[in-house]
Amino acid sequence: MGRWEPNARGRLEQAALELYVERGYEQTPVAEITKRAGLTERTFFRHFADKREVLFAGSSMLEELCADAVAAAPATAAPMTAVAAALDAAAGVFEERGELVGLRQSVIDANAELRERELIKLASLSGALADALRERGVDELGACLTAEAAIAVLKVGFRRWIDGDRERPLRPLLAECFDVLRTASAQGAVGAG
Amino acid sequence: MGRWEPNARGRLEQAALELYVERGYEQTPVAEITKRAGLTERTFFRHFADKREVLFAGSSMLEELCADAVAAAPATAAPMTAVAAALDAAAGVFEERGELVGLRQSVIDANAELRERELIKLASLSGALADALRERGVDELGACLTAEAAIAVLKVGFRRWIDGDRERPLRPLLAECFDVLRTASAQGAVGAG
Repeated sequence: MGRWEPNARGRLEQAALELYVERGYEQTPVAEITKRAGLTERTFFRHFADKREVLFAGSSMLEELCADAVAAAPATAAPMTAVAAALDAAAGVFEERGELVGLRQSVIDANAELRERELIKLASLSGALADALRERGVDELGACLTAEAAIAVLKVGFRRWIDGDRERPLRPLLAECFDVLRTASAQGAVGAG
Repeated sequence: MGRWEPNARGRLEQAALELYVERGYEQTPVAEITKRAGLTERTFFRHFADKREVLFAGSSMLEELCADAVAAAPATAAPMTAVAAALDAAAGVFEERGELVGLRQSVIDANAELRERELIKLASLSGALADALRERGVDELGACLTAEAAIAVLKVGFRRWIDGDRERPLRPLLAECFDVLRTASAQGAVGAG
């Protein structure tokens, strides 16, 4: 056991993201991250399995947060209202983390392997949301489609937030995306098939 | 140039998919595929860059087909109606190919790397649909969300079709998914944010 370091995890994350942006993800060894953070490699590996996990450890927490929010929605809430509550909870975390979220996204955008990983994480989040909806008694098709719709809203709203340098808060952006989706769905596909 | 072989591409694809299912994708060398198809490796590599491309060559054609269908939709068609027409065109191809689509999906489901590749192809299809909608004059948010909604419908409807052993035709399944999405969108998220 190493000695206790105040906010070691946060310092490692900040240092890693800065270096991934400055030098590229591939070109940053763990030794450089710990050097900038003023911590040992031993401390790094107590918090993260590898340098990729610095980018994706939050995804699992996000998934849990979202599933919990769906479960906690009032029993009378419609499925889409329940997933909107989940995205609202996620948006709170993103906004709190502010600049770190922007740094992380620019690292991911610059690397094909990381973009693939991000797609897998989003597919996993969709699965978790669908599971949480099924547990509320939502039927199979409704659960899958509502979960996928939430991911669509998250992807598009989040991208707009990042591209606008996070000047506009994320929550109303997500609400606007839900509105656009509702309008688009209402207009189209009537009587298709 | 080798001699002309009738339907060489189709024979190679059929042989490859059968072998990928029987022995596993990783465990099937190109030599086995050409042996079963009664063709040479030279012929294989005239049609496919590698054994993975047997699974994904169709994705690019599908993307083109869908983008063309969006472009060809009547000028008065709503964005969601235009992407529904695209999925309808795609469904026609899937239904024509029948069993091959089922074989392909079982190969992909069994291999993590192929599942990742499939997610990338779906993200690419979403981008192509959004581009086609922008060219119709649809605004940025509407184009992105309608394209993502179409991918949601395609994923969920296609999965249900495959899981039901393709007994129910795909087109009405997709239409049902659009209906469910419309109902879910209408019910939820009103006044969120």
